[in-house]
Amino acid sequence: MGSSFGQLFRISTFGESHGGGVGVIVDGCPPRLCLDLAAIQAELDRRKPGQSKITTPRKEADQVEILSGLLDGVTLGTPIAMVVRNKDQRPQDYKEMEVAFRPSHADATYQAKYGIQAPSGGGRASARETIGRVAAGAIAKQLLAQTHGTEILAWVRRIHNLEAVIPTDLPTLEMVEANIVRCPDAAMAVQMIERIEAIGRDGDSCGGVIECVVRRPPVGIGMPVFDKLEADLAKAVMSLPATKGFEIGSGFAGTQLLGSEHNDAFLATGDGSLHTATNNSGGIQGGISNGEPIVIRVAFKPTATIRKEQQTINARGEATTLAAKGRHDPCVLPRAVPMVEAMVALVLADHWLRQRGQCGSAANSGN
Amino acid sequence: MGSSFGQLFRISTFGESHGGGVGVIVDGCPPRLCLDLAAIQAELDRRKPGQSKITTPRKEADQVEILSGLLDGVTLGTPIAMVVRNKDQRPQDYKEMEVAFRPSHADATYQAKYGIQAPSGGGRASARETIGRVAAGAIAKQLLAQTHGTEILAWVRRIHNLEAVIPTDLPTLEMVEANIVRCPDAAMAVQMIERIEAIGRDGDSCGGVIECVVRRPPVGIGMPVFDKLEADLAKAVMSLPATKGFEIGSGFAGTQLLGSEHNDAFLATGDGSLHTATNNSGGIQGGISNGEPIVIRVAFKPTATIRKEQQTINARGEATTLAAKGRHDPCVLPRAVPMVEAMVALVLADHWLRQRGQCGSAANSGN
Amino acid sequence: MGSSFGQLFRISTFGESHGGGVGVIVDGCPPRLCLDLAAIQAELDRRKPGQSKITTPRKEADQVEILSGLLDGVTLGTPIAMVVRNKDQRPQDYKEMEVAFRPSHADATYQAKYGIQAPSGGGRASARETIGRVAAGAIAKQLLAQTHGTEILAWVRRIHNLEAVIPTDLPTLEMVEANIVRCPDAAMAVQMIERIEAIGRDGDSCGGVIECVVRRPPVGIGMPVFDKLEADLAKAVMSLPATKGFEIGSGFAGTQLLGSEHNDAFLATGDGSLHTATNNSGGIQGGISNGEPIVIRVAFKPTATIRKEQQTINARGEATTLAAKGRHDPCVLPRAVPMVEAMVALVLADHWLRQRGQCGSAANSGN
Amino acid sequence: MGSSFGQLFRISTFGESHGGGVGVIVDGCPPRLCLDLAAIQAELDRRKPGQSKITTPRKEADQVEILSGLLDGVTLGTPIAMVVRNKDQRPQDYKEMEVAFRPSHADATYQAKYGIQAPSGGGRASARETIGRVAAGAIAKQLLAQTHGTEILAWVRRIHNLEAVIPTDLPTLEMVEANIVRCPDAAMAVQMIERIEAIGRDGDSCGGVIECVVRRPPVGIGMPVFDKLEADLAKAVMSLPATKGFEIGSGFAGTQLLGSEHNDAFLATGDGSLHTATNNSGGIQGGISNGEPIVIRVAFKPTATIRKEQQTINARGEATTLAAKGRHDPCVLPRAVPMVEAMVALVLADHWLRQRGQCGSAANSGN
Repeated sequence: MGSSFGQLFRISTFGESHGGGVGVIVDGCPPRLCLDLAAIQAELDRRKPGQSKITTPRKEADQVEILSGLLDGVTLGTPIAMVVRNKDQRPQDYKEMEVAFRPSHADATYQAKYGIQAPSGGGRASARETIGRVAAGAIAKQLLAQTHGTEILAWVRRIHNLEAVIPTDLPTLEMVEANIVRCPDAAMAVQMIERIEAIGRDGDSCGGVIECVVRRPPVGIGMPVFDKLEADLAKAVMSLPATKGFEIGSGFAGTQLLGSEHNDAFLATGDGSLHTATNNSGGIQGGISNGEPIVIRVAFKPTATIRKEQQTINARGEATTLAAKGRHDPCVLPRAVPMVEAMVALVLADHWLRQRGQCGSAANSGN
Repeated sequence: MGSSFGQLFRISTFGESHGGGVGVIVDGCPPRLCLDLAAIQAELDRRKPGQSKITTPRKEADQVEILSGLLDGVTLGTPIAMVVRNKDQRPQDYKEMEVAFRPSHADATYQAKYGIQAPSGGGRASARETIGRVAAGAIAKQLLAQTHGTEILAWVRRIHNLEAVIPTDLPTLEMVEANIVRCPDAAMAVQMIERIEAIGRDGDSCGGVIECVVRRPPVGIGMPVFDKLEADLAKAVMSLPATKGFEIGSGFAGTQLLGSEHNDAFLATGDGSLHTATNNSGGIQGGISNGEPIVIRVAFKPTATIRKEQQTINARGEATTLAAKGRHDPCVLPRAVPMVEAMVALVLADHWLRQRGQCGSAANSGN
Repeated sequence: MGSSFGQLFRISTFGESHGGGVGVIVDGCPPRLCLDLAAIQAELDRRKPGQSKITTPRKEADQVEILSGLLDGVTLGTPIAMVVRNKDQRPQDYKEMEVAFRPSHADATYQAKYGIQAPSGGGRASARETIGRVAAGAIAKQLLAQTHGTEILAWVRRIHNLEAVIPTDLPTLEMVEANIVRCPDAAMAVQMIERIEAIGRDGDSCGGVIECVVRRPPVGIGMPVFDKLEADLAKAVMSLPATKGFEIGSGFAGTQLLGSEHNDAFLATGDGSLHTATNNSGGIQGGISNGEPIVIRVAFKPTATIRKEQQTINARGEATTLAAKGRHDPCVLPRAVPMVEAMVALVLADHWLRQRGQCGSAANSGN
Repeated sequence: MGSSFGQLFRISTFGESHGGGVGVIVDGCPPRLCLDLAAIQAELDRRKPGQSKITTPRKEADQVEILSGLLDGVTLGTPIAMVVRNKDQRPQDYKEMEVAFRPSHADATYQAKYGIQAPSGGGRASARETIGRVAAGAIAKQLLAQTHGTEILAWVRRIHNLEAVIPTDLPTLEMVEANIVRCPDAAMAVQMIERIEAIGRDGDSCGGVIECVVRRPPVGIGMPVFDKLEADLAKAVMSLPATKGFEIGSGFAGTQLLGSEHNDAFLATGDGSLHTATNNSGGIQGGISNGEPIVIRVAFKPTATIRKEQQTINARGEATTLAAKGRHDPCVLPRAVPMVEAMVALVLADHWLRQRGQCGSAANSGN
């Protein structure tokens, strides 16, 4: 319950932060897809802890093993199971958190829900849970790239109050990966890194905004009513740890425009495809993709676990204080970039298969 | 595909804007619930067109008929089917839209997806589609109120650039329903109404932000990982027509705080329940409700269909212009208030049943 | 919960035997399918009560109204809602059943499950519930016929101990519809009709076996593991009222053969398609269709509601007797023939769309 | 797609016969359940190959590793992942099957469906796929036993034409496990074992019937309409490899009775519970359990892979012959006994949670 995502391209994840391992089953992947296995590991490497001075110093190799579903790197159409073993466990670091609920973390609510919880590390609420998402998303990315030439690219747009305002057609993967904060504005990236380091030294944490663009998405995907493409994208990224907000296209700012300013005029293309003069819609109209780039933004709160002393209660409901001793990210955003891309890829892959299932390859859908 | 929502408390809607009727099946409602049928109709009346001078002048009674699932107003546990007949049809108003795709509406994408579409009125993309949601949500509201004393209340927080900043514990249903724009700040409501009228007279439209609070929600509901409570809330409201953004708790603004500022300190309650000094979390931590009020905000874009002339293309891809002649809302927000409440109610009802299914009535979950 | 069926071609039914009406929503039907609406009504007419001297004398027109999803008889790809109003209500006939649980009917278990039940007629356990299935199945049949030339044909193979052993490639729709018991063996049909009449005169009831063949099914549909095609067929028909058993291909009898006798040898076809010398597999191997006719058989028990006096208890648990006064079928099989066909059609349509979604139109799948 | 089962107690399996391993994720298991881990392994040992002289001589330890979801053997409410590594691989044994489709096996249909397949061993169609089912079913069994005292017991009723007719209230686990064919009739078991050995020596195979009883099931579980308890049981066991038929209660034989003979009279119990004089219903009425033992029977065909030479085609569609060289079971039934129990347990656990979710703990449902 709650650990599966998608209808046709469907993933199911498992694993706590400190158990035997974490992983994912991808069910419904089309057969005969040639997978680049190194590219899957590369996405996990973008996500893993210890990758730079602004992430948690915990070192985990996060080496993925694929147990099923492939024949010489080609998909069989059967479930693809991927596992990453847990290695660097220091449960003693979390000892005091066993007795004190970390403010704004999941300790207290897991206890309220289940009446039991993993003794350390956040259990399923750990960022480690996202390994399965990223590994599965890497397959979805390859599926979309091979069938539609789709590119899914996210980056850090804001850290604390430092914002990089960049046209969404500009960033490349190289620009994003050129610095450890994953902001394609190199000058702003330097400031962001300094800010994260300074806040981390204080034992505090900060948040920000990640932006994501989908170039050359499948056209005509997304369902009317409940499974609108933007609705499933919202759910997908709002299921990531630490998210507090979601926007598509013009977002909250767009609500200050008039209809005549906000509407995206259709331009004649001559070939039957759709093209708009502006893209306030963010590539989706009526819940269905129109072929323009899909543009979303996601708000991430500051990391809940900090070294500064905080007021809280223990499991018996008594007042106490807590100053976390574990090794934590002062800012989750650099590592969250591949998570956002993965969730977006999973939504698009699933909706493309659903569209192909119901409507086949209609000439006018471009699929 | 795409017209069902929820896992245990599950609704399926049907109906185009101008067909025989619209409606909904509610499957999984607990048995032996005494329904207030007048309250269901009252919610539909809050949603219906023609209710005030700032909504579309189209008059539709939207009288609901319940076909099944009840015995003398008491639920049987079997599917509850509700139908509203279509009445006030003027397809000729939409004639020109048959040949020209309305900018930022669903005409073009439906055509790209299906290769066919309803000749008029927007089909499933019409706001009329939300009737089923509101009727089903009215049942979910009663279920939550009777079992948990839960209150779900939404209101208009901003219209265009006119914002009413109100503490979320203040508004009452009476305050919200005291004016036609559904803003609990009476003075600001007057300005908002004037603004909508002025923009409407210009043949233009505007958007804004709706805020929603859930008081006394079930504790411990929501699932780790993909079906986090905020993720399902995000999907629920982002599936409403014209939405562009979603926030929970501190939202986008909260990303500018430090962790030490943002974390919600737990206070000793003496009775084992959870209570926090602040509520930046918006009532949800780790995807699970902690008992504090759930607070969300939803961005609605300006209505796409406007009387002002716009650049567009026709179904053959040729450039043309369009000035809509139909009777349209210059601003969807007043009528969207009950829609937001309905979607929130559906998510909570479903997650409460899912929690009861998996975990029963654990002493410490307050359920 | 429990009133929906299918993943991509998904139906949701509603309605009690004696409420305002019964119906179904079909979601996920491909767009641009030209529907023969008269054929939908014709299937309902094959199912309706009062059609002959061996069915219940209750007269119900069962006239279907389609509320949505069509444009001039062509599917829009959006939900198709169909409703049949209830007409011929005589709740007084069921009065005594309110106080006495009918043996082997659903009265007692509904009460145990829900703590409440419809006062008369069996509620959702009524055969009237199958109207939605038959209407939806009629659409699935047309989809399969138009895309694959698929024919789905069921008939009565046995009534009580009167069995018509007919090669499954022989019966035609005309032969089945040539008599009121729907047995393609005309001579045996006469005996069956006499038997049903005799048993009915005694206030008793009888059961039997329905056989169903699918000619020219889509090839390569069905999923490994849980959603094997025969597993979903089994669920589909075992969800019909009064069913007690299911067989595919050689069935129970085949378990008495040796492997060398039971295996279906593959024959060289020259065109890459599959063809087997025998069809003990019943058209499905490893859960996936091989293109041979799919052959199943379904056991129906004798109707539970009989006029003969029976031992039972009332709702207070006290011993009592019951002799039903309502108008009931002495044998459900003649009317169950279109129900079986409908359920088979729904499974095949759904699995074909699922196959197209995951695998597209692979050259070697024949789709 | 197709590798998940259940709604609330939901399992997802993965793994081919000869890849890195096979396994399962169990999602939705209630928290705070104390698991007997040795009992899980014991069920796998009942299923594993090489356990006796009448099963395949392939030796596989089938040692299960639990990767997540537990704390000191107590369930956390989060996904429980279990993996069994593949060990005894001899792909060369399957070489010739790469070029020749095994008659009545899944080779040809997998190729038709996916256009690719695992090179050896049957891929997902291997009996090895059932490891995940049995491991997950062992947890479901413990859940039902601890909450309801439910016992689920299956046994071999018939091998080839040797049938043990035993009252279903008689067999115990000890009687079933007392011999290697798992037939509680000791005398008949001796004959069955001799028959299997003789047929195996001939390079041939045989099938039979497994019977399963559920004692003290939860009352009131199962859903009206599509998710009737018997429908989900039918799907569950018909998804096992080699199954050809399913019966509940009186089954096919019951269709030869009159209603007055077949109906199960209710007896006054004095305590509000249900009890019937006979149990032709097999413990389920109207799709809902009535508390009587649930009784089903499942037909298993003779193993498809035999050493005798058979007519077939190769992947190019040319006629050829095949005499399998691998090590195969001459009869799958002894090892299928725990598989049937597992599938039944999974259905009941899922439906009990669904019932608790929708209806809570109604006094009169006995839950």
